[in-house]
Amino acid sequence: MYQLSEFQSDFLQYMKANSFSKAPEGLYEPVDYILQLGGKRLRPVLVLMGYQLFEANYKAALPLSMAVEVFHNFSLVHDDIMDAAPLRRGKPTVHQHYGLNTGILSGDVMLILCYEYLLKVEKKHLVADLVAVFNEMAIKVCEGQQYDMDFETRQDVTIPSYLMMIEYKTAALIECSLALGGILAEAGSDNIKHLRAFGRNIGLAFQMQDDILDTFGDSEKFGKKVGGDILNNKKTFLVLKAMELATEEDRENLAAWMRTTNEADEEEKIAAVRTLFRKWQVHELAMKKMDQYQKTAFEHLDQVQVPAAKKQILFDLADQLLVREV
Amino acid sequence: MYQLSEFQSDFLQYMKANSFSKAPEGLYEPVDYILQLGGKRLRPVLVLMGYQLFEANYKAALPLSMAVEVFHNFSLVHDDIMDAAPLRRGKPTVHQHYGLNTGILSGDVMLILCYEYLLKVEKKHLVADLVAVFNEMAIKVCEGQQYDMDFETRQDVTIPSYLMMIEYKTAALIECSLALGGILAEAGSDNIKHLRAFGRNIGLAFQMQDDILDTFGDSEKFGKKVGGDILNNKKTFLVLKAMELATEEDRENLAAWMRTTNEADEEEKIAAVRTLFRKWQVHELAMKKMDQYQKTAFEHLDQVQVPAAKKQILFDLADQLLVREV
Repeated sequence: MYQLSEFQSDFLQYMKANSFSKAPEGLYEPVDYILQLGGKRLRPVLVLMGYQLFEANYKAALPLSMAVEVFHNFSLVHDDIMDAAPLRRGKPTVHQHYGLNTGILSGDVMLILCYEYLLKVEKKHLVADLVAVFNEMAIKVCEGQQYDMDFETRQDVTIPSYLMMIEYKTAALIECSLALGGILAEAGSDNIKHLRAFGRNIGLAFQMQDDILDTFGDSEKFGKKVGGDILNNKKTFLVLKAMELATEEDRENLAAWMRTTNEADEEEKIAAVRTLFRKWQVHELAMKKMDQYQKTAFEHLDQVQVPAAKKQILFDLADQLLVREV
Repeated sequence: MYQLSEFQSDFLQYMKANSFSKAPEGLYEPVDYILQLGGKRLRPVLVLMGYQLFEANYKAALPLSMAVEVFHNFSLVHDDIMDAAPLRRGKPTVHQHYGLNTGILSGDVMLILCYEYLLKVEKKHLVADLVAVFNEMAIKVCEGQQYDMDFETRQDVTIPSYLMMIEYKTAALIECSLALGGILAEAGSDNIKHLRAFGRNIGLAFQMQDDILDTFGDSEKFGKKVGGDILNNKKTFLVLKAMELATEEDRENLAAWMRTTNEADEEEKIAAVRTLFRKWQVHELAMKKMDQYQKTAFEHLDQVQVPAAKKQILFDLADQLLVREV
């Protein structure tokens, strides 16, 4: 049986061998810059794990793992421009470091490079299927980002529309990573369907956890400042659920806090909103939702027709990602 | 024999049937907006013409013609942001009309949609080849745009590097349009090679003409303000050739004009630079270069192994594009 760290290090080695140190430097240096900022490399690892359920030599899937990692980083580069974010993993974002135009153009070439990696697989007869699944995901990610921006100014956001937005923006890429591995391994449509559903539900659980940690997490363990969503007035599951359950008075109260911007005392605002969340127990409801997603995910993984021992690494990884350390 | 207008109207009909009136509106409305601004639809027409050299029912190539038109417009949307251009065909640019974030994200989804259209062809076994040729072009266009931006601040731009830049930024998409038509028609590697060379050289001739018209054209016929390249201190073939040929005094003189920005009298600057160009006859040299490219293009089209009558429409279109109305 393989270890998570083996997948990670094989991917990192492949990425290193495929570095973009070529001309024009102004275009490609930022690509290496963002790719080297680090991270768990979750998505490329999932491609490899999806493949190795069905086929032994998972290195054949490395080009596909690169495609999803480059896509993920493309979306970070362009999203950071749209969010005017100065920092990413503690380092200047691409547009901050290299300028807006470079952020746009280097992001564009990254998106194109994804398809270069899809073409690099040895089984050429699968390219059309791989591109189709990748495209379906890429379109969802753009639509999800658009909904996320739209929701900032909309007052009628519902929980189902929020869940659709995070499915598109976050879960679709996790789903696609597993799908690509399964397609390349020619795993069959039923297995691929369950693998995708596993990925999608894990992605949703992961985003629910992220919402919870952003508000209630331990900033040391979480690795970023807690309370960011509250300060940015993000309409997360927590907010939408509180709006649904609270009395009119508390709803007004929460809405008033969400109208404040920079002028409010940051710590006071975070504390007040947290208190409202606790009062209406939305944290527990979010945990419950996250558990449901994980349960559904695991049911689908159970349905994938390979020996249980092969699937264990995916169950373990999902358990490890969903830490519940709140 | 077909007429140019038939290809154009069949393409426009296909585009209309494929309009992007779907949710989220904030993402897709700008796609329709830019696609409907008009233009000669040269690139999609070339796809169809390339195909009909070898196969009768050119409508099979419509998805590919849509791919190149959407790509062309994607590049306009993102380039207009990078150039801070307020207008495009007399209308507000996408980012001017809808905001920067929309310009970025709608451009991104357009780039992804190109691949959706490549997937729509009936001959699925050709998808990998189509994506490969498309990608080669898309990467060149990004690299060309980067070189173009780099050249603004570089003082050591040579004529060969300028020609490479316009080949990447402009000619590659013309070349790709013909290549896609040829590949879908399974025209064979020799025919496709000559078709590509025809497209590339026509693209280069077209860009040389654009440089000439921008400086010496009749603004009524040209359809945009003459002198824009001079005012923006663009290092076109005309400038680089004048720098190569002129005496040190005239070189200094031209360089001094090219250091001026908004403070200079616009008409005076245009007139002075034009006078220097005329003195060193760079306009004639640019025309000669353009003629060479066209001659090379036609030699390659001659080599394409189909009856001469079938190729006539491509010879005619090229003649029509390269008007020499200066």
